[in-house]
Amino acid sequence: MTIHATPMIVERLAAIVGARHVIGPDGDQEPYLVDWRGRYRGTAEAIVKPASTAEVAGVVKLCAELGFAIVPQGGNTGMCGAATPLNGRPNVVLRLDRMNTIRAISRLGDSIAVDAGCILADVQKAAESADRLFPLSLGAEGSCQIGGNLSTNAGGTAVLRYGTARELTLGIEAVLPDGSMLDLMTSLRKDSTGVDLKQLFIGAEGTLGIITGAVLKLFPRPRQRSVALAKAEDIEAVLDLLALARTELGDRLGAFEVMSRGQVEVIAEHVPHVAIPFALDAPWFVLIELVDTLRGIDLSAEMEAMLASAFERGLIGDALVASSEAQAAALWTIRHSVSEGSKRAGYVVSHDSAVPLEHQAEFVRRVEARIAALRPEARIVMHGHLGDGNIHVLAILPGIAADQRETLAPIVSAINRAVDEETAALGGSISAEHGIGIANKERLNHVTAPREMALLRQVKGLLDPRGLMNPGKVLSD
Amino acid sequence: MTIHATPMIVERLAAIVGARHVIGPDGDQEPYLVDWRGRYRGTAEAIVKPASTAEVAGVVKLCAELGFAIVPQGGNTGMCGAATPLNGRPNVVLRLDRMNTIRAISRLGDSIAVDAGCILADVQKAAESADRLFPLSLGAEGSCQIGGNLSTNAGGTAVLRYGTARELTLGIEAVLPDGSMLDLMTSLRKDSTGVDLKQLFIGAEGTLGIITGAVLKLFPRPRQRSVALAKAEDIEAVLDLLALARTELGDRLGAFEVMSRGQVEVIAEHVPHVAIPFALDAPWFVLIELVDTLRGIDLSAEMEAMLASAFERGLIGDALVASSEAQAAALWTIRHSVSEGSKRAGYVVSHDSAVPLEHQAEFVRRVEARIAALRPEARIVMHGHLGDGNIHVLAILPGIAADQRETLAPIVSAINRAVDEETAALGGSISAEHGIGIANKERLNHVTAPREMALLRQVKGLLDPRGLMNPGKVLSD
Repeated sequence: MTIHATPMIVERLAAIVGARHVIGPDGDQEPYLVDWRGRYRGTAEAIVKPASTAEVAGVVKLCAELGFAIVPQGGNTGMCGAATPLNGRPNVVLRLDRMNTIRAISRLGDSIAVDAGCILADVQKAAESADRLFPLSLGAEGSCQIGGNLSTNAGGTAVLRYGTARELTLGIEAVLPDGSMLDLMTSLRKDSTGVDLKQLFIGAEGTLGIITGAVLKLFPRPRQRSVALAKAEDIEAVLDLLALARTELGDRLGAFEVMSRGQVEVIAEHVPHVAIPFALDAPWFVLIELVDTLRGIDLSAEMEAMLASAFERGLIGDALVASSEAQAAALWTIRHSVSEGSKRAGYVVSHDSAVPLEHQAEFVRRVEARIAALRPEARIVMHGHLGDGNIHVLAILPGIAADQRETLAPIVSAINRAVDEETAALGGSISAEHGIGIANKERLNHVTAPREMALLRQVKGLLDPRGLMNPGKVLSD
Repeated sequence: MTIHATPMIVERLAAIVGARHVIGPDGDQEPYLVDWRGRYRGTAEAIVKPASTAEVAGVVKLCAELGFAIVPQGGNTGMCGAATPLNGRPNVVLRLDRMNTIRAISRLGDSIAVDAGCILADVQKAAESADRLFPLSLGAEGSCQIGGNLSTNAGGTAVLRYGTARELTLGIEAVLPDGSMLDLMTSLRKDSTGVDLKQLFIGAEGTLGIITGAVLKLFPRPRQRSVALAKAEDIEAVLDLLALARTELGDRLGAFEVMSRGQVEVIAEHVPHVAIPFALDAPWFVLIELVDTLRGIDLSAEMEAMLASAFERGLIGDALVASSEAQAAALWTIRHSVSEGSKRAGYVVSHDSAVPLEHQAEFVRRVEARIAALRPEARIVMHGHLGDGNIHVLAILPGIAADQRETLAPIVSAINRAVDEETAALGGSISAEHGIGIANKERLNHVTAPREMALLRQVKGLLDPRGLMNPGKVLSD
């Protein structure tokens, strides 16, 4: 039985969450129907903002009863349209904003329990106020929500040292597609009691249920850091530098980020307020951060010794070790300006590949050649979290506006196909940290082994047999 | 269609793996039919030892065709009977011994790819030979196999610093109950492409498929360590000491192990060759290990400073910092002698609880009182990886032999029930690192929420609808 009646659902949703927290077709739904980059757009019968797990369950039960699909939406900062409704069936966008309570924090257990709607930066701050670190860190941290971070298994700049969102999660609470609640809110570090059910919801982008809460790991806070920028002649040298840094400095290596010369040039040209305190006289620039939880060690000296050793081996040319916190922050500002700079330089066809480090050099060379052959006018630049094998390859197309959809579609598709082919051939992943959503579902289907794809569909069929949870995302039709 | 014919299956298995690698009912099956503690025993139509993933798939397909169950068995070192056949249906024990190749090791990517039958100690050694650390470490490491470690999400002494087997796993390869192969042998650190299917097999104890290979994380090798033993008056002080150590020393804290006075006394009485270089004049003894990947820091000084601070705060009494590697090893020998000592002291009813650290003190007090009320003659001792919340509570029953099954059954059951009730009431897990197997399946069913239990059964039904994989394990009938 499937009944779709907009006025009725608005009224019945209001009975669960209160009329103020439902936006029907006559209200201002706009911010919830389009992703922040303006690339995906849909419609919804209603936007609903429950305030508790019980209310989420009530909304899901109602939608199941009436046959409405549900699109969970956190901070709406995703890159792949996973939180934007896809037209085709009547749906409700479920926002988690009002579920933004820090439920508990344990210094002793090094854990924090939060509502799924907590903003990432607020979780970081809560940890800091308990003299602990929650290490997940990414560009959107001021507005993305932790439930969305878990749903896409978010990465960011601290994965090398602390792992992805999955590895930072001890427990979750979720509402299943039938409206039942799964309480797995444990803070335990060790638990060997069969299959770990929480894993089904991490990375599932809301297609198997809605994460409503999470228990996350905290860490001792770093007391000092040392930041340096080094120049390298080729990607092989950058990789050798990474291996040297890991061997010499161990887990003090907190970040190992790379930018191609073209990437830094784009920033220099288009983000003039960002100072570049070094000459652009090398093909690759590496940003290295060391962190330590003790003060009683001279981190800058350790950094300098490692860089001196790298210089002697011919791995790097110049290097610059920040002599103050301000200098360190300035170097990071360059790294954080890559998106802004690239966006201003043209239409960006960006990729989020991860490739095993052994094949990283081959990958860089191959994709550069493939894109250049396809679009000689493209400016090909790269940046990424090389320490994690995650390099973002960007083809910047000058002189094409984002609304020239018909012109863009075949170009984007051809570039994506070339990059995906090289990624898959080298044992990589087409989405290291951005997810699948709408954007990458056909690409995922194309590069994934049939048995694996079948199992993903089986799991979806098991948990959501009616296909009500975030339809049209992750799995292609 | 179900056909059970022993001579036929022996012959057909031989056609897949070679006659030398099948042990029929006339051969010496004994070592494979009983667990190492002699607590579980079953029968099998055949023991089969495939040499490759393709052979495993062949065996599974054959068993599926003929309706035989399959019991995967690694090193047969488990504590819960998960690898021992359970009588009731004809089955084949599948040993992974011959799949013991280190497939690849990457210093650059900090990963190692191994066959599931590799012995844990051999994986550690291979990592060491590449100047890296594979941190999983537990008592049975000289004979347990990595496939078994992953199948039980093994813990051990390094979880505080490096995580459980699950967190050390990047990729796996598995043969599914229908004989198809799932190749998820990735070494990537970041991958955001939907549900992480490998998680279904980690901790599943072979009930959803057979893990045949794995890619594991490696770490920079520690270059030095400092080991100390401290005495504390109560468990609250021990917990405060843990919080202090984490705050002051950060991730240098590699292990934080605790033993009750009774536990050390048991060792002193029954393992005379182990020297106890301190007086047994406190209720609790804490073994602390700091590790560092750099040499350029005085770890012992850091340890002493932290202990001095703990002493000033009244958290600890005496403390002893090992002044040589030999002294450090001697302190660890005491910790490693707990099982031997306890076994010689009587029949051991042991528990593997994890409890959130906030409730650890309450837990210790409550279980001590409950067991004492049930069995006044029991010697109640404790040891554990307190840093992970994992404390092993042992009730040692003097004067009862292991073969007095009828006497033992009601006693063991009553003690288990009491400990499980307190564990569950305080938000803990009844199995932190040993698994479920046969031993704990009724207990798991008893303490787990119905929705969670139902989902575990649904997942089992999805992957293994005919119930051929390791029947009678994890899930109660």
